[in-house]
Amino acid sequence: MFDFTATYTDQYQLTMAQAYFLKGRWRQRAVFDYFFRKLPFGGGYAVFAGMEDLLGVLENLSFDRTDLDFLARQGLDPEFLKYLEGFRFRGNVYASREGDLVFPTRPILQVDGNILETQIVETVLLNILNFQTLIATKASRMRRVAGDRRLVDFGLRRAQGPGGYYASRAAVVGGVDATSNVRAGRDYGIEISGTMAHSFIESYDEELQAFRDFAQIRPENCVLLVDTYDTLRSGVPKAITVAKEMEKRGHRLRGIRLDSGDLAWLARESRKMLDAAGLEYVKIAASNQLDEYVIRSLLEQRAPIDLFGVGTSLVTGQPDAALDGVYKLVFAGDSPRIKLSETLTKITLPSRKQVYRMLGGDGEWIGADLVALAGEEEIRTMYHPFDNRKSMSVQDLGKEPLLEKVMEGGRRCSSPRSLADIARYARERLDLLPQEYHRFENPHLYKVGLSDGLKVERNGLIESHRKDGT
Amino acid sequence: MFDFTATYTDQYQLTMAQAYFLKGRWRQRAVFDYFFRKLPFGGGYAVFAGMEDLLGVLENLSFDRTDLDFLARQGLDPEFLKYLEGFRFRGNVYASREGDLVFPTRPILQVDGNILETQIVETVLLNILNFQTLIATKASRMRRVAGDRRLVDFGLRRAQGPGGYYASRAAVVGGVDATSNVRAGRDYGIEISGTMAHSFIESYDEELQAFRDFAQIRPENCVLLVDTYDTLRSGVPKAITVAKEMEKRGHRLRGIRLDSGDLAWLARESRKMLDAAGLEYVKIAASNQLDEYVIRSLLEQRAPIDLFGVGTSLVTGQPDAALDGVYKLVFAGDSPRIKLSETLTKITLPSRKQVYRMLGGDGEWIGADLVALAGEEEIRTMYHPFDNRKSMSVQDLGKEPLLEKVMEGGRRCSSPRSLADIARYARERLDLLPQEYHRFENPHLYKVGLSDGLKVERNGLIESHRKDGT
Repeated sequence: MFDFTATYTDQYQLTMAQAYFLKGRWRQRAVFDYFFRKLPFGGGYAVFAGMEDLLGVLENLSFDRTDLDFLARQGLDPEFLKYLEGFRFRGNVYASREGDLVFPTRPILQVDGNILETQIVETVLLNILNFQTLIATKASRMRRVAGDRRLVDFGLRRAQGPGGYYASRAAVVGGVDATSNVRAGRDYGIEISGTMAHSFIESYDEELQAFRDFAQIRPENCVLLVDTYDTLRSGVPKAITVAKEMEKRGHRLRGIRLDSGDLAWLARESRKMLDAAGLEYVKIAASNQLDEYVIRSLLEQRAPIDLFGVGTSLVTGQPDAALDGVYKLVFAGDSPRIKLSETLTKITLPSRKQVYRMLGGDGEWIGADLVALAGEEEIRTMYHPFDNRKSMSVQDLGKEPLLEKVMEGGRRCSSPRSLADIARYARERLDLLPQEYHRFENPHLYKVGLSDGLKVERNGLIESHRKDGT
Repeated sequence: MFDFTATYTDQYQLTMAQAYFLKGRWRQRAVFDYFFRKLPFGGGYAVFAGMEDLLGVLENLSFDRTDLDFLARQGLDPEFLKYLEGFRFRGNVYASREGDLVFPTRPILQVDGNILETQIVETVLLNILNFQTLIATKASRMRRVAGDRRLVDFGLRRAQGPGGYYASRAAVVGGVDATSNVRAGRDYGIEISGTMAHSFIESYDEELQAFRDFAQIRPENCVLLVDTYDTLRSGVPKAITVAKEMEKRGHRLRGIRLDSGDLAWLARESRKMLDAAGLEYVKIAASNQLDEYVIRSLLEQRAPIDLFGVGTSLVTGQPDAALDGVYKLVFAGDSPRIKLSETLTKITLPSRKQVYRMLGGDGEWIGADLVALAGEEEIRTMYHPFDNRKSMSVQDLGKEPLLEKVMEGGRRCSSPRSLADIARYARERLDLLPQEYHRFENPHLYKVGLSDGLKVERNGLIESHRKDGT
């Protein structure tokens, strides 16, 4: 993994921290919200991921000797440097559970601590959560179209450097079964998967001999790549020959892999040839620039593909490549804070808050999250966040609180959840989300609204700033 | 940095390596080409980056104890595991100089070693080179439109996890001046840069007091963020007040930063207000979702902006997010190898090769790279790589060889080039590239062709495979 030290941050965090420190303001309490404004991929939801990684980083965050020497050379104040030597994050964190579905505008996570520590962690927090949430969301879209077929991450070679290591983790949160990424498998306990490359076959004079050697070395888990020279005239017939030889030794060829050409057609023709040879049990794997749309198209064409290997678009979150998550101050000292903007949708929601998921009569989701002040009681009405005239009664709806305290004084409140648990939870939550929010084209708009208390507080702050002209 | 161990690879590399090992084939010589097929961003060139990082990784690559324990649990053969315990990369690497301009089809780098080691390094090589080349290319496009204005990387918070650390390095190769990323500054010697966030101002009851405190702490390098409440009615007037106060103390406000709204208009209006107050020396910085097209548009509107802070699109290489670089076997044992394909452009170029840049009479570039067999003499004609009928005489042209040996037996042939050197070289090479290859819209197509020797060798291999039906 990356050795995150406290200089994994933007320079201005340290500049501001020094100003707080030298002005004696650094003990001031501050609360920051993490949220995003736009759902990725034009979709109807996002899958929250990265939190356990983030908590691990926060628990251990400090400036090491190399950091301190570097900062000293940058001319930081000696007293402040001495403070940084003992710096640890000691704040509280409230968050949605990793794997839950999250939506724009509403806080996903809140950090509550002194203004110096809450500021310094901004960059690493955004860096981890934005990326993993993007990739988990992408993976969930592929899982949706792939159904029960096997879905394997092949992306490391095209990933954004070691972003690929974290992408492999996030992909599992979103529903991917396994990864080719050995290092991610080692550290995150993800099943690893892989077969052979074209180079293996090319290193032999004969494709058949390459297949035979590979089958002999891996009799229990042999998948042969059949498109090196000519899929249907060379690769598949020779794979069939080898499968028959394996049968004689009591083994079974596990599968063949297609990595180029017209995958739908090649899969159908290969299936026919395999079946005609009595090899119904041999699976077909496909790879080559797949994304959720190509997978959907292949399956609409009834391509008999059993496993999809997905690479670039999964691990880089193409075409979006980034989630626009932000971290905004909502409380400082003893009062709520707001960031105004010409754009109404960019005005922040002040104060410590709780988010409730609105539930129908028998506990089913109704497609709405309500943001309230922390501790606010008797929530009866949900207001549109940007249009004061729109509201709906939520009096009779069940309300599931979503933000729980996950870190207190810089220590986790409970032991880390396993990746398998998180992936299971994501799947459960996706199953609860009504279908109209899942579709790729013009999904239903999930509602996020404000409680009465929060609306009044926000509008009051806007008013007072306008009056002051500050 | 990331602790790259030899499990930072795809599972199939290890599967193949084990097969080579157990079959006694692992000492077989193999040569792999690194190249890409499609220029990113619809542009006319790419800037090669990441090589010094890669060489550092290759020099130190080994399986650590955690790797070996994990692989043992995966059921790898005990003899092979014992071999991996002592594994080091001992191959030779031939490469273009980092920072040079590179084009599709031609090898950028060749790895020559035994087939086991050359295979295991594939994934990390592609992971590092594909990403850094993408980002350096993106940065060079921003530099082109920004001219001499300051260009600063603000991207870490939206980067793909620790991809952002390497993106900051690659951005400098492509022409970025500085980064907000403190850790990248520390490790790569990049100038770090940063001012203040909205939260700093919001943490005060009064914007003016926040400005005053900040100016007092940073009298020599104070840039004030002016859009927290109202840019032209609050932020700029208060920045002017503080600038005047600073003047009385013998200091100068360095700049203001705009981070929202209509940047062209706000920059013009702010400039007028600053100039009217006699503050012509105060610079204007702008940020907020900038890319090369937005920067170009702002400057076409004559926005008086002196510094651009660029984030997401720089560090993630939006909208492409990945370079399609591949690593293909071109020689094994004692003979050249080829990968056939239904798609002519996907057929590989066999053998160890040299690449020449064609130069006109007085050494100027003519927009062509020629790929020849290593050691091939008397290169007279350049052939179109996929169309045998097209050729041109290159007899009278100068020829600059591009691939040099950078690693021998797993050790670098010379000490690492500094990042500043690499960035300078990229700038020189960009200056040599004729203008028609720089433009964003339909750039001129840079020619890559084959020598007579390579053409004959490739066509011969294609023929012999077609005859064999392998």
